[in-house]
Amino acid sequence: LKINNLNKELLLVRKLLKNEIIEEEIISDLYDYIFKSSGKQIRARLSLLTSSIDKRKGEKRLRLAAIIELLHTATLVHDDVVDSSAIRRGNASVNSIWTNSHSVLIGDYIYSKAFMLMVALNDMKILKELSDATNDISKGELIQLDSINNIKVDLSYLIKISYFKTGRLFEAAAKSGAILAGGERDYIKHSTNFSKNLGVLFQIKDDLLDYQIDSHSGKPNFQDIKEKKITYPFYFAYTNASSKERRDLKDFLDCESINNEKLYELVSKLGGLEKTENLAISFLHKAEISAYSIKNKIVKDEMLNLLHKSLNRKK
Amino acid sequence: LKINNLNKELLLVRKLLKNEIIEEEIISDLYDYIFKSSGKQIRARLSLLTSSIDKRKGEKRLRLAAIIELLHTATLVHDDVVDSSAIRRGNASVNSIWTNSHSVLIGDYIYSKAFMLMVALNDMKILKELSDATNDISKGELIQLDSINNIKVDLSYLIKISYFKTGRLFEAAAKSGAILAGGERDYIKHSTNFSKNLGVLFQIKDDLLDYQIDSHSGKPNFQDIKEKKITYPFYFAYTNASSKERRDLKDFLDCESINNEKLYELVSKLGGLEKTENLAISFLHKAEISAYSIKNKIVKDEMLNLLHKSLNRKK
Repeated sequence: LKINNLNKELLLVRKLLKNEIIEEEIISDLYDYIFKSSGKQIRARLSLLTSSIDKRKGEKRLRLAAIIELLHTATLVHDDVVDSSAIRRGNASVNSIWTNSHSVLIGDYIYSKAFMLMVALNDMKILKELSDATNDISKGELIQLDSINNIKVDLSYLIKISYFKTGRLFEAAAKSGAILAGGERDYIKHSTNFSKNLGVLFQIKDDLLDYQIDSHSGKPNFQDIKEKKITYPFYFAYTNASSKERRDLKDFLDCESINNEKLYELVSKLGGLEKTENLAISFLHKAEISAYSIKNKIVKDEMLNLLHKSLNRKK
Repeated sequence: LKINNLNKELLLVRKLLKNEIIEEEIISDLYDYIFKSSGKQIRARLSLLTSSIDKRKGEKRLRLAAIIELLHTATLVHDDVVDSSAIRRGNASVNSIWTNSHSVLIGDYIYSKAFMLMVALNDMKILKELSDATNDISKGELIQLDSINNIKVDLSYLIKISYFKTGRLFEAAAKSGAILAGGERDYIKHSTNFSKNLGVLFQIKDDLLDYQIDSHSGKPNFQDIKEKKITYPFYFAYTNASSKERRDLKDFLDCESINNEKLYELVSKLGGLEKTENLAISFLHKAEISAYSIKNKIVKDEMLNLLHKSLNRKK
């Protein structure tokens, strides 16, 4: 396996997703719109990577990666309703072109399509892992919803949200790939731990990028605070703040229109960004230990590559 | 099996659903609220009925029925977002007490919980039937959404919607029950056909009850037309109407506040209600043929009982 091959395989996964034939026009319109653009496909990549130790599973490996992409995409479509997002992957979101109702139902369609394809894979362990993960993702979203505007969230709660809503599918992608390829117990364990920590790192970095001035993230900045979400930069800043600064931070939460520069300055001054970066690095270290425990050199090297790319990404 | 026993078993199914332990407070609040009241449980009853030919499957039969209830409930919670419903089963809907976001996410939670329990049942045929059905239900909802305010829908389209959004889960409940009990090919076939037609009949009757003045349905009347949905009574009336009457009918579709009595009068005068009733009876006949093909007398009798109850119900 060369990394070049992984990229080629990801193109095949996209093809699999795009070639889905749907009889009903409204459903195929929505589906095609959603899959015309893709994200970083890091979850699908993880599943292709961990399953790559047995290349004879060729067709099934691609199908598993497609399932992972479907599950991820369904959560995004529903997320856009929850966050009232107008933009997704640089395009107008389904809810902004059609309606929230369309987003809810096409999300359900994509979820259930993923389950149909899972059943066709015919592996009970993979089915169990992916259905558990889907449930955990919804848990993560619900507890995040419950934490909105709640200044009392603590670090372990924030990490729990990151794990459930992001790390969990990274974990399931890698684990089910490793299971599919018939990996040994240790291989499955290290792949799983690596991906779980990579996923949490990925989410921490996402939260950090949201606090960047003039970022190239492709997303509008300071979205989290606009949605009244307490994320790591705000949390660390608040923990470190004087009473006066705490009042100022709370004002940003309550405020309808936010002065990005002022928020950035205050959070930055209070160490919120630096501490978030350090937290990300601590998850990088955790993931590194697991990656170094993987014997297969090609898999290990790509894991380390993914890890550093995820930490250093600008969007 | 006496019918009395079926009712007892349905109570056990409800207990199974209610006893679900959820660690996260917000999720358990939502879950408990949703399952504190139940509907007619006709889908769960069908699954208990068709699986009753092998009583040794006791515990698994109850779990399958609980899965069917979970799937059905998840669709209702998402439906309430789509229809902006304030009321469900006589209580305020989740979206009206919490928010649409809560409904979307707890719906996803319940769906995925159903899949987890399905996987635990460890039967690939049942998994296939139920994941296919879940996908078809979302299809039905989407094509119904697409038909809103569309005066050009024809009868086959309306029946397709009724089958996908209602008949399909009736069918899957009965089929998976029959599979669980190890029923013979013919038993599975007749149970499946019976339930599919019962489900369509059930939906036709629902649409008819929505057009009743002073009904005891427990739901607000004339909801469909308020949501701009063309259903059977309107469709049949429109098909039978003069140009002048068609304009009047269209006015009801466009109108913000509807005069229920006038709409009822016009639809009734144009034979919309009678023809809907006749359509329901034609599905009763189809279902009857399948029920009479079932050899097990107790199952057959309860099927016929369900059929006539469904046609004659007032709510």
